[in-house]
Amino acid sequence: MNERSYPWEPSPTSLMTDHYELTMLQAALRAGTASRRSVFEVFARRLPNGRRYGVFAGVGRVLEGLEKFRFSEDQLRFLRDTNVVDQKTIEYLENFRFTGQIRGYAEGEVYFPHSPLLTVESSFAEACVLETYILSVLNFDSAVASAASRMIGAAGDRPCIEMGSRRAHEEAAVAAARAAVIAGFASTSNLEAGYRYGVKTVGTAAHSFTLLHDTEEQAFRAQIDALGIGTTLLVDTYDVENAVRLAVDIAGPDLGGVRLDSGDLVTQASAVRSLLDMLGNTNTKITVTSDLDEYAIAALRAAPVDSYGVGTRLVTGSGAPTSSMVYKLVAREGTSGTMEPVAKASSGKASVGGEKFALRRRNDAGVATQEIVGISHEPTDDGDDRELLVDYVTGGELRDGYVGAQAVERARERHAQSMAELPRAARRLSEGEPVIPTVIEPGTAH
Amino acid sequence: MNERSYPWEPSPTSLMTDHYELTMLQAALRAGTASRRSVFEVFARRLPNGRRYGVFAGVGRVLEGLEKFRFSEDQLRFLRDTNVVDQKTIEYLENFRFTGQIRGYAEGEVYFPHSPLLTVESSFAEACVLETYILSVLNFDSAVASAASRMIGAAGDRPCIEMGSRRAHEEAAVAAARAAVIAGFASTSNLEAGYRYGVKTVGTAAHSFTLLHDTEEQAFRAQIDALGIGTTLLVDTYDVENAVRLAVDIAGPDLGGVRLDSGDLVTQASAVRSLLDMLGNTNTKITVTSDLDEYAIAALRAAPVDSYGVGTRLVTGSGAPTSSMVYKLVAREGTSGTMEPVAKASSGKASVGGEKFALRRRNDAGVATQEIVGISHEPTDDGDDRELLVDYVTGGELRDGYVGAQAVERARERHAQSMAELPRAARRLSEGEPVIPTVIEPGTAH
Repeated sequence: MNERSYPWEPSPTSLMTDHYELTMLQAALRAGTASRRSVFEVFARRLPNGRRYGVFAGVGRVLEGLEKFRFSEDQLRFLRDTNVVDQKTIEYLENFRFTGQIRGYAEGEVYFPHSPLLTVESSFAEACVLETYILSVLNFDSAVASAASRMIGAAGDRPCIEMGSRRAHEEAAVAAARAAVIAGFASTSNLEAGYRYGVKTVGTAAHSFTLLHDTEEQAFRAQIDALGIGTTLLVDTYDVENAVRLAVDIAGPDLGGVRLDSGDLVTQASAVRSLLDMLGNTNTKITVTSDLDEYAIAALRAAPVDSYGVGTRLVTGSGAPTSSMVYKLVAREGTSGTMEPVAKASSGKASVGGEKFALRRRNDAGVATQEIVGISHEPTDDGDDRELLVDYVTGGELRDGYVGAQAVERARERHAQSMAELPRAARRLSEGEPVIPTVIEPGTAH
Repeated sequence: MNERSYPWEPSPTSLMTDHYELTMLQAALRAGTASRRSVFEVFARRLPNGRRYGVFAGVGRVLEGLEKFRFSEDQLRFLRDTNVVDQKTIEYLENFRFTGQIRGYAEGEVYFPHSPLLTVESSFAEACVLETYILSVLNFDSAVASAASRMIGAAGDRPCIEMGSRRAHEEAAVAAARAAVIAGFASTSNLEAGYRYGVKTVGTAAHSFTLLHDTEEQAFRAQIDALGIGTTLLVDTYDVENAVRLAVDIAGPDLGGVRLDSGDLVTQASAVRSLLDMLGNTNTKITVTSDLDEYAIAALRAAPVDSYGVGTRLVTGSGAPTSSMVYKLVAREGTSGTMEPVAKASSGKASVGGEKFALRRRNDAGVATQEIVGISHEPTDDGDDRELLVDYVTGGELRDGYVGAQAVERARERHAQSMAELPRAARRLSEGEPVIPTVIEPGTAH
C-alpha cells in the first residue's frame, strides 16, 4: 500500500435511493411516526449457493458515502418537479444529516446466516432513507469479497491479481478491486483503486500491443526497452513455443515472467516451464489469466504456475453476483416510548425481531465453533469468544480509521485473522452447509 | 420522461483503466509506434447462455464519460508517485483528449455474435487507453438490457418496474435502471436514474413502514393520508386476506393497488383478485415483486397480475451478469503507412482482422434474416436491408443527440423497432442458437 493520498470525492449518494424510501418518509412525517426511535438491521437469511462462509465488505465505502448523503438544491428541485414528495418532506430533506448510531461487523470479517452485520439506530426517518444506499454497497462488495476469499484459499501461497475491471460497471470495478484486496488479493489492474485506496496496481501489455508492431520481436523489444527485463511478456498471440524462445533470446535469463491467456493452461504451463528451464530461465515466472475462478485455480494446483490473474468470475461473484443481504426494521419505539421488537410474518421471508448482538464462540484451541446471536442482549463470553461488533458512527460522528486506505488495510488483516480461526472445512469448494452454525439466543425480558 | 434537466457530472473516468493500458502506451511512445493509426473493435464472440439475441446498451454513458476522460494534476501525480509510467508518458497524458472517430450500433439495437458493436479509430495511443472504460460500461449495461428485454417479452402488455438498486453497486444500479428502461421497462425505483436521465420513478412503501406503526390499520391510513387512495398498499406483512379486507375498508373502491412480495404468487394473485372483485374493487390493481425473472414472469402469464416489479435477477443480468464483449485491435497502420488487418491466433480466442461494417438483412416482409458483416468493405444492401452503424464521434467531436435523456428515449424506440423486426422465435426463453445467423463477408482487395 502506498502512503500518499490523493483527493477524490464520492458522487452524491442521496438519490441512489429507492423512490419508496422517500414516500415512506413523507407518510411517516405526516402521521407523526417519522421521529420514532428505530433499529434497522442488515443480515442475510442464507449464504449463496452452498457456500461455507461469507465475507463482509463495503463498510468503509458506506461510511465514505454517508458523508455525501445530503440533498442539494438541484436534487430537491428534482424531487419537487417530479412530485416524488410534498413540500414538508422537501423541507425535512433540506437539512438531512444522519445523527444516529451505526455499529456492525468489522470489514473483512466472515459471516453466516443471520449474523447481525450492520445495525442502524436513529429516528425512523433517518434510517429509512439510508436503506437502498447501504444495501447496494454491502451486497456488491461482499459478493466480490466472498468469491475472492475462496479463490485465495484455492491459490494457497501463490499471489492472485484482480483484473476484472472490464467485466464490471466502471465504478463497481473500483469497488471490486478494493473488495478483492481485502479478501487477500495481492494487487489489482484498476488504477482508480490504487488512487483512492492505495492498493498496489500492476500491468504490462495486452495482445493489441503485439499486434500493433510489425513482428512479435519488435513488440517484445519495445516492451523490454520501456519496462525492463523484469517485465512479463504475453506469449500467446501467435505461437507459444516460438514466443517463449523469442522472449528468452531477447531478455536473457533475467526475464521477469511470461503470461498465458488462452488454451489448456495446465498443459501449457507445464510445457512453458520445461522450455524456460531448458533455456536456463529457471527464475522466469509464469502468470496465467484465462477465465479463472476458484475451481480453475484449484485445478492448477499441481501445475507450475506462479501467479493467477482473475477477472470476470471474480467481479461477478463467481456465480453469486450479489449477496442476499436485507435491511429490516427489528425494533422501534412504541406509543409508550419504550422500544419494541417487530418482525413481519410473510411466508418464506419471516424475520426475527429485536436488536441483535453477536460473538464468535471459539474452543480452547481458538477454533471458531458457533456464531452466537443474542436478541436484545449481549451473549456471554465463555472465555475464548470474540466480540464481533464495532462502533462505526456515534451520534452521527464517524469514528476514526474506518474509511480510505486505512480501512482497506485493517479489513485485510481482519479477514486473514478470521479465516485462520475458522475450521479447515471452510476452505472446501464443494457445496455444503455454513462451516459453523448460527445459534440465536432468545431475548430476555427487560 | 420529464422534460427538465438537472446538473450532474460523471466522475473522472480516466483512471477507471487497467494499469497495462498505460504501460503499453509508454512502450509504444518509446518505440515510436504510439501514433500508428489503429482500429479497435468491440464485439462479442458469443451470446450468454443460449440466448437468442443480445441488446447493445451503454453507448450514451460511454460518450458522457469520454468527456471526463482527462488526467488531472492529482491523477498525474499519482501515476508519477507510484511509478506506473515514466515522465514522457505523463507529459503525453497531460494533454490527453480523444481526437478520433467512434461509430457503432445504435444504442438499444439487438446484436449477435461478431456484430461489430463499436469501432474506435485513432492513434494507437488514444484508442488503447480507452479500452477498459469502454468495455466496463458496455459489458454491464448490455448485460442488464439483454436480461430486461427478455423480461419485457415475457410480460407482454403488462408493465415492468425496475427495482433492483439494492442488489447492485450503487452506481451500477443507476446504469441498470437506465438499461432496463431502454429495453422497455416502464419505470424504475431509482431516483438518481430519474435525476440524470429523466426516466419515470415510482414507489410507495415497504414492510418497515407497516412495522413502524402500532397496527397495520394505522400504517395503511398513514399511507393513504399522505399518498392518496390511488396508492399501492403492501398486503403481506402479516396476513394477506386480512390486509386486503382492511385496505378496501379504509380506501374504498378506488384503492389504486395492492402489492404481493412473498409466497406462491400464482395462487396468491388469484385469491387476492377474487377477494378484491368480491369486495367491489374491480379496478384495484395487483403488483407482484418477489424474486422475479423472465421465467417467473412467464409462469404468471395466466395469473391476474397487473404489473411486475423486478429486482435482483434484472440487475444481475438473469444469470449473465456481464456480457463477453472484447475490444480488439483489428487493423493498424504498417511501416508503409497503409492500414493492415491484424488478428491474434490464440487457441479458442482467435479474432477476425480488418475493419468491419454491418447491416441487417431483411426479407420482403421486413423480417430480419441475417446479420451481414463486411470485412474492410460495406456490404451491399439488397433492397430491404437496414444500415446498423451510427457515427458517434468524428474528429473527437461528439455528435448531438447521443447522451442524456434524449439518448435513452431514442434507444428505447430503437429497441422496440429492432425487436418488432426479429423473427418471433427471438422471444423464446428456452436456450437455443442466435435467432439470425451472422454472415461474415470476407474483405476485398483494395
